[in-house]
This record gives sequence, C-alpha cells and structure tokens, in this order.
Amino acid sequence: MSTAPTATFFRSRWVERPSHAVELSPTALPGGFRAAAAAAGIKPEGLDVALLVSDAPTTASAARFTTSAVLGAPVIASKEAALDRLRAVVVSSGNANVGDGRRGLDTALSAQAAAGKMLGVAPDAVGVAATGVIGRELPRERLVAGIREAGARLEEDAADLSEAILTTDRGPKRACLEVALPSGTVRLAAQAKGAGMMSPAFATVICLVETDAAVDAATLELLTGVTVKRSFDRATVDGQLSTSDTVFALASGASGVAVEQESPDELALGEALDALLRQLALEVVADGEGAHRVGRVVVRGDAELVEPAARAVANSPLVKTALHGADPNFGRILQAAGQALAGHGPLHLDLRIEGRQLVSGGTAYDLDPDELHELEAAVRGPEIEYELTVPGDGGETEVFFSDLSHDYVTLNAEYTT
Amino acid sequence: MSTAPTATFFRSRWVERPSHAVELSPTALPGGFRAAAAAAGIKPEGLDVALLVSDAPTTASAARFTTSAVLGAPVIASKEAALDRLRAVVVSSGNANVGDGRRGLDTALSAQAAAGKMLGVAPDAVGVAATGVIGRELPRERLVAGIREAGARLEEDAADLSEAILTTDRGPKRACLEVALPSGTVRLAAQAKGAGMMSPAFATVICLVETDAAVDAATLELLTGVTVKRSFDRATVDGQLSTSDTVFALASGASGVAVEQESPDELALGEALDALLRQLALEVVADGEGAHRVGRVVVRGDAELVEPAARAVANSPLVKTALHGADPNFGRILQAAGQALAGHGPLHLDLRIEGRQLVSGGTAYDLDPDELHELEAAVRGPEIEYELTVPGDGGETEVFFSDLSHDYVTLNAEYTT
Repeated sequence: MSTAPTATFFRSRWVERPSHAVELSPTALPGGFRAAAAAAGIKPEGLDVALLVSDAPTTASAARFTTSAVLGAPVIASKEAALDRLRAVVVSSGNANVGDGRRGLDTALSAQAAAGKMLGVAPDAVGVAATGVIGRELPRERLVAGIREAGARLEEDAADLSEAILTTDRGPKRACLEVALPSGTVRLAAQAKGAGMMSPAFATVICLVETDAAVDAATLELLTGVTVKRSFDRATVDGQLSTSDTVFALASGASGVAVEQESPDELALGEALDALLRQLALEVVADGEGAHRVGRVVVRGDAELVEPAARAVANSPLVKTALHGADPNFGRILQAAGQALAGHGPLHLDLRIEGRQLVSGGTAYDLDPDELHELEAAVRGPEIEYELTVPGDGGETEVFFSDLSHDYVTLNAEYTT
Repeated sequence: MSTAPTATFFRSRWVERPSHAVELSPTALPGGFRAAAAAAGIKPEGLDVALLVSDAPTTASAARFTTSAVLGAPVIASKEAALDRLRAVVVSSGNANVGDGRRGLDTALSAQAAAGKMLGVAPDAVGVAATGVIGRELPRERLVAGIREAGARLEEDAADLSEAILTTDRGPKRACLEVALPSGTVRLAAQAKGAGMMSPAFATVICLVETDAAVDAATLELLTGVTVKRSFDRATVDGQLSTSDTVFALASGASGVAVEQESPDELALGEALDALLRQLALEVVADGEGAHRVGRVVVRGDAELVEPAARAVANSPLVKTALHGADPNFGRILQAAGQALAGHGPLHLDLRIEGRQLVSGGTAYDLDPDELHELEAAVRGPEIEYELTVPGDGGETEVFFSDLSHDYVTLNAEYTT
C-alpha cells in the first residue's frame, strides 16, 4: 500500500473517501475519551496492555464478537457485560487467554474488576479482549498490574493504545476523523489490529471505535452491525476464524451533537464509519501475515452462490500464491469457484482480472503476447481486482484478501503465534 | 517417508499391510494389460501421454470423477463413455484441458477416437484424463500423435505410464501386488499422481487401477467406490478440489479367477485394494507440493460434526505451518474446530497429539518442561497423529494432510501450474 499515490488514510481505491470528513492526527481521540498502555510482560517486550476509558456516565456502546464455537475467556466475559453502556475496554496482546478453562475466565473477570475499581465503574461496564497465543496461561498478576499502570497515565491520545494491541502486525492501524454532520461536527476514531488467524464471521480482528457524537445504544448497535458487515466481515488473510475477534464501539456524547436514528445525521455518521472501517479492514488485510498484495474478488450472480464462490477464491492457497507471484492465473479462480459450487455445475463462468475479460461462458480467451504482457503488468500492483460472474441473478458480494507468501510460512512455521 | 523403517510399499503406520498380498515389481502389470507412454511435447520435456490397454473384450471397469462444478473436458468426455466396459485409458499431463470450451471437448473426443481406432475398439470404450495447467489450449495434434506413438510400443509394464502421468510430483506412485484369494491368485496394480490442487470429494488425483481378476462391472464399481472413499477421499494437500480428478479401475479377467459379489474372494480383493489405495493416497499427500510431513487427524463425536472439524483442521494453513515447523501448536487445532463448528459451541474439546493428551474438556494441560520437550520430539517425525473429540457420539473420521512449506509457496507463486 506504500506505493499508493496519496499518503492519507484512505489509500485504497476500494474505499470512497467521505467528502464530509477531515483527517485529524491518526492517534487523536474524540472528546470524552482517554487511553493509555503499559508494558506488563505478557509479550517478551513492548506495550501489551491497553486501556480505553469514556468519562461520561451516559456513554453508549455496542459490540461484535467472533462466531467461533471455541471462545477466548475475554469474549465469554465480555458477552456477559453491559454491552450497551460500556465505560472502558481493556485489550491485552501476546496471549489470547483461550483454552485455559476456569482459570482463564477468572483472569478475564479479574481484569474487569481491576479496571472497574480503578475507574469507579461497575465491572460489567468494562469490556475485555485479548489476542496472541492460544492455550497458555495468561499471567493474571501481570495483566492486572498493567491495567493499574495504564490507568495511572490516561491521556487524550490513542498512540500507545494502538501500539499495545498489536501482535504480528507490522504497524498500527488507526485514524481519527472530524465529521461534519448536518447537526454539527463530531469526531470519530478507531484503532484495529490484525494480522493472522483472520477470516471474518464477523471479523477476525480487535477494533475499538470511539465517537463523541451523542448516539443512543440502539443506533450505535445498528451502525456498528452494518459497517462491520461491510468491512471486517469482508476481509480474510488465511481463512482462519479467530477465537478472540472483538469490536467495541463507544459513543461519549461529549460533542453535544445528537444523532437520532434514521436521521440525516445518522446517515452521515454511518457513511464516515463505513469508510473508516473499510479502510481499516483493508489495512489489516494489507498487513496480513506475510502479505505483499491485496486482492478484491467481486462475485455477481445467484444470491446463494456468490458468497461461497467469493470465499473459495479468497481463501484458495493457489489463488493466493498466484496473487503473490503476480501470476494472472485465471484457471485457479475457475477451479476454486468450481469447488465451492459443486452440485451447481456445469458452470459457464465469466471472469475479469483488472478489468480485462479473460473467460467468457466458461471458455478462456486466447491472449496474444501483447495482451498477456499487458495483463502481467496489470497484476503487479498493490491491489488486484477479480470480477467473477456465476449463474443466476440478484446477488453481489466482495471479499478482500491477502496473498500467500514465504513470509507467512516463516511466521507460522518458525514461531508459535 | 524416506526414514520409515521398511523399504516396502506399505510404509505408513496408518495402512494395514494385507497379509495375503505379496509385492511384485512396482511397475508390473496384471495379466491382460499393456501400457506405454510418449513424449508428445505437451510438457516442456519428458513423457506426457500415457496409454493403458486391456486386451480382453470382456474387460469390466469402473470410474470416479471430481465433484467440481467446473469440469475438465476429459472428465466431461469420459462421463459419457461406456464406463463399465472400458478397454483403454489415455492420460496426458502438462495441460488439464479445462476452460477451453468446445475446442477442448473436441480434443478429448479426438483422443478417444484416435485410441479407439488404433486399438480396434469403440471410442466410448476409451477413458481419457488430463492433468496440468488450466485454461490453455491442449495441442490436439500432439496429443493424438502421442497416443499413436505410445500405441506402437505397448508392453506389459507400467514404468513409462506411471512417469508420464506426473506433474509437480517428485516421483511416481505405483505398486503391483500378487493377492491370494480363496479361489486363486490374482494381480492388482495401481498408478497414481498428485501433487497439488488436491482435496478430495471424491479424489484429487488421477489413478489407474488394474486387476486380472474376473470381476463383473457392478462388483468392481462397488469395490472402487468403497476404497476410493477410504483413501483419496480422505487426503488433502491444499484443500483445493481439482477440475480433473479421475480414477479408472479395469479388470481384465486374465487370471481366470472369478470374484463373485459378497464372496470371500471379494472381501480379500477388497482388503488388498483398500490397503493399496490408502497407501497410494498417503504417497500423494507425502508428495504434496512442498510437503515434508504427513498429518492424520482423527475426529470422534457427533456424526454430523466430525467431518467439518477434520476438514477444517487438515486444511488450516495455521495447523499446516505448525506441522511443517514441528510445533505441537494445539491452540490452532482448537481454533480450526471452533471455526468449523460455529453455532455448536461452546465446545469442550479433547485433544491428543501423538498419543499425548494435551486438552481435556476444552482446557489445556500445563506441561512441565520435560513433557514439553518430549512432545516437541514426538512431532518431528514423518507422520504426526492428532486425535480430537468433539461433542456427541456415533461418528469417527480421518483426514490425511500435508504440511505447508516454503516450497509450496515457491512452486505456486513462481510457476504457473
């Protein structure tokens, strides 16, 4: 993504820059929020415990969690919290606190209790999330000490927080927007992490969203649900759903600008949130473990068929290695669709890569050497688009995916992540 | 697999050596069969067109094909053939003849016609299969010339045939057994190829099976179906179902030993065929693109849950890179099962790796350094076994899978395969 023409946050051609939003410092926070982080020794080094606090007692919130049947203890604990009125979130990295039974759950509850006591809020007003290795004990004392340390240095900036939530990410993913709503100006910010064990259903990341708009919990829930579906839900690195995916969205109301449901304000805030989360999802994919390129597969056709076909293409190691190698290997796209749609054949697929029609009615064009050369040049960029048409009408979907590289194998074969 | 204690064909501990079978030269053919191959220029070099012929007009046959919704032209043509009385099979490598529309289908029909004319049999008594790159024209004249060249040098040996069907395979996969049935002795042989785009449903390989037992077509169909389900159907390299998977089984009857349905002869022949195809499937997995190790995941529990859980584990790039790195990363096994069984949680899984219980009721054991050291040593071998228990009873399945290595990425990113 570093070769994109502009250096702003909205780098992808697949995200529409919201015309009513201005980028602030990427680590700025909306009014009413404070954050901090500590190096608690959960990771071998660096910041690993992050704390986000909303000072207003009337803060509204919403959340989304992984749909995995194996849940991290923080997800289990958070699902029991007061998800519509969270006041704080604790995110730790380096250890996901998964598979540790009662002991792991007690650690998650201890984190809620420690943060709640320190901030003067109920334990169930604290959301918790963790990311990192699975199946090892998360050191409870270090986590609690980290929460206390972070709590002592809260400031109106998310720089440390956005660093502390990372694992194998190459860098932080964060932005803060000033959004002009019809009723006034609000701030909207988010901080996310990737980078492996990532396939959405809903998401496979941890993401914190903050706004100082005055949004009631029901509206925030709706906005969060819709925009997560169009962002993290459409992203995959390795097709592997995490046990720990969590999105928390908090609205402090500190701007004094009220956003009513089904109002033009809600629409304008929703458009900005949509762009923000889509770009963040693309950042996560672009920073997928070992990733060098991002693909976008768009599938059109029968509404029941487009989703499995898009997922199959996006998660195929053959498609992903071809993306890595800048090989416009349309045969592997056809193969993946054929596998996903077994029982719906014979398929007479149409396929375009970077706008060039390569397959029509299931039959590949014979490219002349000039056309092949042009196609090969087109797939060397940072973002490659595949458009596939399957039988039927009425459905369209997209999935963003990363390539599969040597670095992915190195990261996951040589290190326990 | 080269470090296995014995140098015989039945190298895997997961295949029971049939006590009533003796290994012959691996390239030997049962009575009544002849084979040959030619270098026709479909591949850049080497043998690429193979021909198998059964001389007896009463030959019985059976076949299995990929379930993909995108089919290679040879599969489409073969499905229209007289599959219960095939007399010959043509297999070409280097180009799968997929996605070439009417022209590709005409090429497959030309191969049937050329072989039929040369051998004096009907075109629909010729099965055809092809493997290799997808979406490029298969040169018809070269294929037909190769068939004619091979037809002129048929001999009672499968050495050239078993070489000519390979693509990215490191070497041929073949065996010939002498099998003592209650009614007499017969020969049973097979030749298979892998090595990528491999996930079974049924199979993702090309395999030819020959026997000189006198088996009627219905019995051969039954034996082929059952044994393919227990072998190639249980194997995966990269989870990618091919457009071209084909198994042809031919019975010449040349031994004069009749195998009746539901007889002790059928049982004995079936046991030998089962062991033969299971070992061949394991050979294909072990020779999966870039593969260094083979895993076997056994899942027990609810009959509806065991299959998706086993597939998810076997096809997870995180599990496969951990297998490659000799990392006993049980967290990734739990994650994969959790993803596959979304909606069936919370799961209280049990997990054993190489016979050691690591997770019980969803909670991981705390291993002491000695136990961890022993476990890490245990996962450095050529075959690693994972046993997973999911909720419920009545189901058990297994999937054989290869690791994911740098060599897989190199093969698939740097070459069009």
